[in-house]
Amino acid sequence: MRRDRLFLATTLTAIFTADLYFILLPKLRSMGRGSRQFCLCGPNNLTLPGQEGLATPPLSNWTSESPLVGAITDPTDGGSKLDRLFSHPLYNIQTPVLGPEERLLQAEQLMEYYRRKVSRWERHMKLYSEAAAISNITVTEHEVTFDPNASWLKFHLGINRYALYSRDDPTIPQLLKDMEIMTVVSADYTQDEKALKGSCDCTQVVKPSGHHLKLALKMRNFAKAMFKPMRQERDDETPEDFFYFIDFQRHNAEIAAFHLDRILDFRRVPPVAGRLVNITREVLLVTHNEDLRSVFFTSPANNTCFFAKCLYVCKTEYAVCGGPDLLEGSLSAYLPGLSIAPRISIPNPWIRSYTFNGREEWEVNPFYCDTIKQMYPYNSGNRLLNIIDMSIFDFLIGNMDRHHYEIFTKFGDEGFLLHLDNARGFGKHSQDELSILAPLSQCCISFVCRSTLLRLQLLAQPGFRLSDVMRESLEGDPLQPILTEPHLLALDRRLQKILKVIQRCVRRLGENEVITKDFVKATARPQTATDRRKSR
Amino acid sequence: MRRDRLFLATTLTAIFTADLYFILLPKLRSMGRGSRQFCLCGPNNLTLPGQEGLATPPLSNWTSESPLVGAITDPTDGGSKLDRLFSHPLYNIQTPVLGPEERLLQAEQLMEYYRRKVSRWERHMKLYSEAAAISNITVTEHEVTFDPNASWLKFHLGINRYALYSRDDPTIPQLLKDMEIMTVVSADYTQDEKALKGSCDCTQVVKPSGHHLKLALKMRNFAKAMFKPMRQERDDETPEDFFYFIDFQRHNAEIAAFHLDRILDFRRVPPVAGRLVNITREVLLVTHNEDLRSVFFTSPANNTCFFAKCLYVCKTEYAVCGGPDLLEGSLSAYLPGLSIAPRISIPNPWIRSYTFNGREEWEVNPFYCDTIKQMYPYNSGNRLLNIIDMSIFDFLIGNMDRHHYEIFTKFGDEGFLLHLDNARGFGKHSQDELSILAPLSQCCISFVCRSTLLRLQLLAQPGFRLSDVMRESLEGDPLQPILTEPHLLALDRRLQKILKVIQRCVRRLGENEVITKDFVKATARPQTATDRRKSR
Repeated sequence: MRRDRLFLATTLTAIFTADLYFILLPKLRSMGRGSRQFCLCGPNNLTLPGQEGLATPPLSNWTSESPLVGAITDPTDGGSKLDRLFSHPLYNIQTPVLGPEERLLQAEQLMEYYRRKVSRWERHMKLYSEAAAISNITVTEHEVTFDPNASWLKFHLGINRYALYSRDDPTIPQLLKDMEIMTVVSADYTQDEKALKGSCDCTQVVKPSGHHLKLALKMRNFAKAMFKPMRQERDDETPEDFFYFIDFQRHNAEIAAFHLDRILDFRRVPPVAGRLVNITREVLLVTHNEDLRSVFFTSPANNTCFFAKCLYVCKTEYAVCGGPDLLEGSLSAYLPGLSIAPRISIPNPWIRSYTFNGREEWEVNPFYCDTIKQMYPYNSGNRLLNIIDMSIFDFLIGNMDRHHYEIFTKFGDEGFLLHLDNARGFGKHSQDELSILAPLSQCCISFVCRSTLLRLQLLAQPGFRLSDVMRESLEGDPLQPILTEPHLLALDRRLQKILKVIQRCVRRLGENEVITKDFVKATARPQTATDRRKSR
Repeated sequence: MRRDRLFLATTLTAIFTADLYFILLPKLRSMGRGSRQFCLCGPNNLTLPGQEGLATPPLSNWTSESPLVGAITDPTDGGSKLDRLFSHPLYNIQTPVLGPEERLLQAEQLMEYYRRKVSRWERHMKLYSEAAAISNITVTEHEVTFDPNASWLKFHLGINRYALYSRDDPTIPQLLKDMEIMTVVSADYTQDEKALKGSCDCTQVVKPSGHHLKLALKMRNFAKAMFKPMRQERDDETPEDFFYFIDFQRHNAEIAAFHLDRILDFRRVPPVAGRLVNITREVLLVTHNEDLRSVFFTSPANNTCFFAKCLYVCKTEYAVCGGPDLLEGSLSAYLPGLSIAPRISIPNPWIRSYTFNGREEWEVNPFYCDTIKQMYPYNSGNRLLNIIDMSIFDFLIGNMDRHHYEIFTKFGDEGFLLHLDNARGFGKHSQDELSILAPLSQCCISFVCRSTLLRLQLLAQPGFRLSDVMRESLEGDPLQPILTEPHLLALDRRLQKILKVIQRCVRRLGENEVITKDFVKATARPQTATDRRKSR
């Protein structure tokens, strides 16, 4: 029996390696030259002839132990694993030539927007300085610059229908650097904080606690970043009795999530950098918001702190404090404003219940995915595959709080999913929350994006081990170490579990092809918005 | 210079020991036989002839190193230090024979009150059981007993104008035992929780967070105890940036404070015992309060939890969870109901500001005590000395949250101060908050109650070391260890600091007798309520 499995595994590996080399990679490469189907998502599956009804090869043979993608890995050790990863053929598929409609923004449009912002700022500063002088408010005024080569502008211009940035775009390291060191000229609550106006929505029994502490910082060149301050130590674990929706937001999770997303080659998380923010000089003294100024105080230990002002909460337990002024935080690059690049927020079909006892349908109905597969927009295109990608990403970081996802309206149903707000990841290194993988385990469609699977397999190889490339990638952040070793090692363990779930899908699909066929049929029948757009 | 000091210290010690043996102890003993002035508080001071204007002996000679009260200590080591302490003459001064007006309650009155309670309970249970059956609520019904020998009854009957209980009252260990093991027949919010009706007073910037988690538990024999659940681990320290008013309430601090108060011989803290409470069986299933039932939930780790329901807070961060049902807590014996033993709550003259930047007068005016000394009720009797006792107690436990104190109205201005609500003690073992001692250091009147001083000096001796007797005393609690070693050792260090402050007062009084004289004069002038009562 064991020999059979070994034989099967070896055969599978050989076939798959051949498939990868002679069929898949040339296909991926050729796609760079004109094809619109950039991601290999769709009803491709790995059910190979002769495999139906057979026992699936054991995990140990199928994942890290076997060189499934080993034929193309560099077995030499030493040197940068991250460099090796990014120079692997899987990470060097040419980007297709982009049509104008495939870019989020046009240069002229964005420059006009930038110019308007600068002149509005100058008008505002003139009026504000006069008012501040009368009211005796001390505000530090910094010189601002209009820089048509600013990294944030280039980042915004680079956003296209495939990803937020391209793999080797030099803009991204520059943008990270800018967020790490550039002078902050103003600080304010974010738009959603302002929308709350200090009130807490208590229609639900429980409420997230991350509110009211994240801030928008504007840099000298008008780059905007969302600042999430450090709330807990690197080695603090989320208590086991905490519900995911009351867990802290972790600045280091935001940073680590950006790096992981890039390593998985999704590129759906806007760049995030760590920064030691001087909350007196870079927040209190540059804010023009009286409300924000009013939540600052000096702690008994003489540290500068600010607290979450929630109308009826008024608790300083939620305060964060500098030491005495410096406070770690994550700075996430803002996406282009909604006025020039509208996005829509869509509830995750695998949303969790935000109450104590409530259960969502997916938690009780094992055939939930069948329903979803029939429904627009999951019945066509790659939306469902993208949801599965997202669940893999969330499972790796341990994020149970993905209640919504966002897409750019411009790219319609074919747009990629933005992986925003990852601060509730990396809370418990010892727990692998398999329910996060429900979209994958319940749908099992064509495994996942084939490109995703290939990368996951690559990252399970010793030569590219996920924890190693993550550690290396995170070393570039000024707040390193970003993740503790147990969190890094958890990534490897979780990766194995994902591959195991996929393996189980192989078995299921082999035994019962109906699921896939149903899906293919379903997409063909009702004409969707996407279909209509395509047929134009 | 050093020799002079040593000589002075030795002389002082000799004189003081003689004073203690031939004057003080006989006086204390004789007081047991009829004198109303039980506590040696008043304008006695230790300023001995020849001491004025001289340098005070160094601390090391004056406190733990020198046998100030050593002549009466047993130097042999081994055996129970606590037993030795409680058999020391200072702890064996006979209690005066109590007149009927000196007891808080009369037996008949209390029995009548008890009988009424039992019959009201029986009526209520009959109605409630019927209603519960209709509404399909599961409530466990326990047999109740009317026990005229119940320990809580004896505790209530023993309360007198000097203390909550007498030194060797066998009722107290029995009451502790009852609270530790007796069947709980019902659970409810406490009266002050009910008064809040789930709303939080947000007129202040900040609010205490201990609210809404303390519960009143009723035992089978109608003993009532306040349950404060465990909120933090023994070795968790209060973060340095926390204000005292947002600190957690600690169940172990409640327990330790009761033991310390008894060791200091104040006996102003109602008995407190630790108990592992089954929050499902002993709270959820016995409560008749729908609101309380509604805050129970099962955590993601499958533990039973309940949360603080504050109308606009609705946060489960404040939840406490059992494992899966058992939760540590402190049970503090209730004092007699306000209807039969009214108390008044008086703001502490050394109250702190409950805002971020506010400062109270005592914090900025070094002559604050002079003002207080002129004011009723601090201008006569022993109230101010009691405040100083309380500040010594609070300094030892590190409690900065003594905003009010309570007294039984029956004993008028001569009543002792109740040391209720000590759960904010023992938060930081490494910090000695000297500002808590402000009443002592600012007033310096007659040092403190002479009896208090003698006991403090005794507890600084190796043969009775405070940390040792506390450790021993706390070993009797079922939740032991109650305090970590650093907290126990902090008691010794703080005791030294108290003695140092008193020593500084000796120096000050020696140099400037005016303070004491002023005080004496002031008490003579305006006729107070106390004076009027006395002259009748």
